[in-house]
Amino acid sequence: MPGPPRVTLDDVARRAGVSTATASRALGDHPHVAAATRARVREAAEALDYVASPEATRLAGGPTGRVAVLVPHPSRWFFGELLEGLEAALRAADLDLVIFRVGGPEERAAFFARLPARRKVDAVVVLAFAVDELEHARLASLGVDVVAAGGRVASYPSVGIDDHVAGRQAMDHLVHLGHRRIGMIAVGDTQRSGAGPSGKDVGCLAPEPDGRTSAWRAALGDAGIAPDDELVVTVPWGGEGGADGMARLLGLRSPPTAVFAHDDETALGAIRTLRRAGLRVPEDLSVIGVDDHPLAALTDLTTVAQPVRAQGRRAGELVVAALRGELADGLPPAELLPTRLVLRGTTSPPGAPR
Amino acid sequence: MPGPPRVTLDDVARRAGVSTATASRALGDHPHVAAATRARVREAAEALDYVASPEATRLAGGPTGRVAVLVPHPSRWFFGELLEGLEAALRAADLDLVIFRVGGPEERAAFFARLPARRKVDAVVVLAFAVDELEHARLASLGVDVVAAGGRVASYPSVGIDDHVAGRQAMDHLVHLGHRRIGMIAVGDTQRSGAGPSGKDVGCLAPEPDGRTSAWRAALGDAGIAPDDELVVTVPWGGEGGADGMARLLGLRSPPTAVFAHDDETALGAIRTLRRAGLRVPEDLSVIGVDDHPLAALTDLTTVAQPVRAQGRRAGELVVAALRGELADGLPPAELLPTRLVLRGTTSPPGAPR
Repeated sequence: MPGPPRVTLDDVARRAGVSTATASRALGDHPHVAAATRARVREAAEALDYVASPEATRLAGGPTGRVAVLVPHPSRWFFGELLEGLEAALRAADLDLVIFRVGGPEERAAFFARLPARRKVDAVVVLAFAVDELEHARLASLGVDVVAAGGRVASYPSVGIDDHVAGRQAMDHLVHLGHRRIGMIAVGDTQRSGAGPSGKDVGCLAPEPDGRTSAWRAALGDAGIAPDDELVVTVPWGGEGGADGMARLLGLRSPPTAVFAHDDETALGAIRTLRRAGLRVPEDLSVIGVDDHPLAALTDLTTVAQPVRAQGRRAGELVVAALRGELADGLPPAELLPTRLVLRGTTSPPGAPR
Repeated sequence: MPGPPRVTLDDVARRAGVSTATASRALGDHPHVAAATRARVREAAEALDYVASPEATRLAGGPTGRVAVLVPHPSRWFFGELLEGLEAALRAADLDLVIFRVGGPEERAAFFARLPARRKVDAVVVLAFAVDELEHARLASLGVDVVAAGGRVASYPSVGIDDHVAGRQAMDHLVHLGHRRIGMIAVGDTQRSGAGPSGKDVGCLAPEPDGRTSAWRAALGDAGIAPDDELVVTVPWGGEGGADGMARLLGLRSPPTAVFAHDDETALGAIRTLRRAGLRVPEDLSVIGVDDHPLAALTDLTTVAQPVRAQGRRAGELVVAALRGELADGLPPAELLPTRLVLRGTTSPPGAPR
């Protein structure tokens, strides 16, 4: 006859109303846990007759003072801004930031394969890429808090923007200018999402880029314009992708008079194609992006600005709160920071001289 | 009567022909020291009757598996590329990269003030900013190897480009096109140099930006053109600086027909000013930058390409070699990677239609 089911750390955490990572730290005398939280977890452990397993004790360990950040592409502006904000917030709490590039599938596989054995960080920050089931399990096995910045990732607490709202700000601007045939250059892969080594995402980045594409559809619908799917092209992230996407839109029997590009770098690629085709922006074709990349101001690009550094900073604050056991448990907070339309010189009414 | 002068670790290092950091590691049984180096250092210590001080022993410590990188501005493309290359090289050697932003004077002062007490890294990489005497002393007190990437810093082993050669590639191109009145937008401060908290640099970045400006002068001289100093304007780094610098050049009684900008982002700022002034590039004025930033390709900017990621990678390799005691001592290697002219659409003969 089997004995009663063994009480696990999960049970203790659930009873105390905290995450498993917090419960582990509270029982491991981790110094960054609030006294009230520690007391609540201990009461729960006593009430349940919980006996810590050696594994749980090992996982709790002592604090290392280090936080790992997983970055797909450190040299891209978006990720660099997230890093800047994150570093500032962690530095203020005297935590060191260890950077791991996880750009290609091989790098990701190598990192996730050896991460659990290393146990060298107190928390992990995932910068805007989708983790697959295997990666998710590996992160969970670390027994540390995981926070996402720059977009929602799995069910981790995250800081990002509302991509649908940002997309509506861009699309509504084009619609209000009088455009009715509006193209969309969507980004299908590499920057802010992508399948992991096992080839299977866990729904992680649903709001993006789908939020921007759904905004294209919704804005047209609200304006009484039937969306024409051939006006949506999907390209790899970056300027070359944008240039290619614009070429495809120009090749349509009825090209658009305005284009909403997934981001500023994609938009600048689209503008290069227009210039090479001898078309004027915005007289012949309007272009709008998302980001407010520093070069958007230099190139007079109309865009929807997002506060990227602030997303990194806020994610760092969430890490600090989590390490102190002060992060509200239960439904993870998906914080969304506001975006805003920035009018510059690449949009105008269709066919209008400036 | 004072006894004989005490033998120091420096004496041992000098006799063994290695750096003080290497001598410290060799005597501390650090696993990353080559056997031959260790033997040489021990022989030197024995020959000199060297007795390790508690401080030296503490400094040697064990290896942490971590390398600190000091980055002025992680979100700028140049530094992001250096980081990418550095991370890849260190990762290959199973070393973690801890990132410290040292952008403003306060951040730098705070970092350097507490760095020695932390002793948490095996080496430090300085990304292209000038360290002052106080910072230099603090880094030395760590007893770890220091390597610079993206430019020469003090006397540390470094990887960069030859800024004078890069400047000549840009200037000779403009001269060959027939320009005789050529402006220069130099960058005076923030990106790759700047005084430290004590306000005093130690000559660290002499080749840059001076190398680019000296190339302006030398190229004109070789072409038999008397350099007119009012054609050199110095601005803060970035697009806005470039825009301002271009406006100042346009305000001259006799404006230039071509401009050599310190870098691509500065060049793009200059082009914005020209566009707003109703001037055509290159028909009315040619512009060239340095870097081959990804957006240079998108904006058809003629430039001098430098391999930034490779500089980071090579610096990482120097760190690994240093930790293994394999870095040649004596004169530090200042490695210079090649640059090349990339012809695009922003330069043409003066007054020529394209």
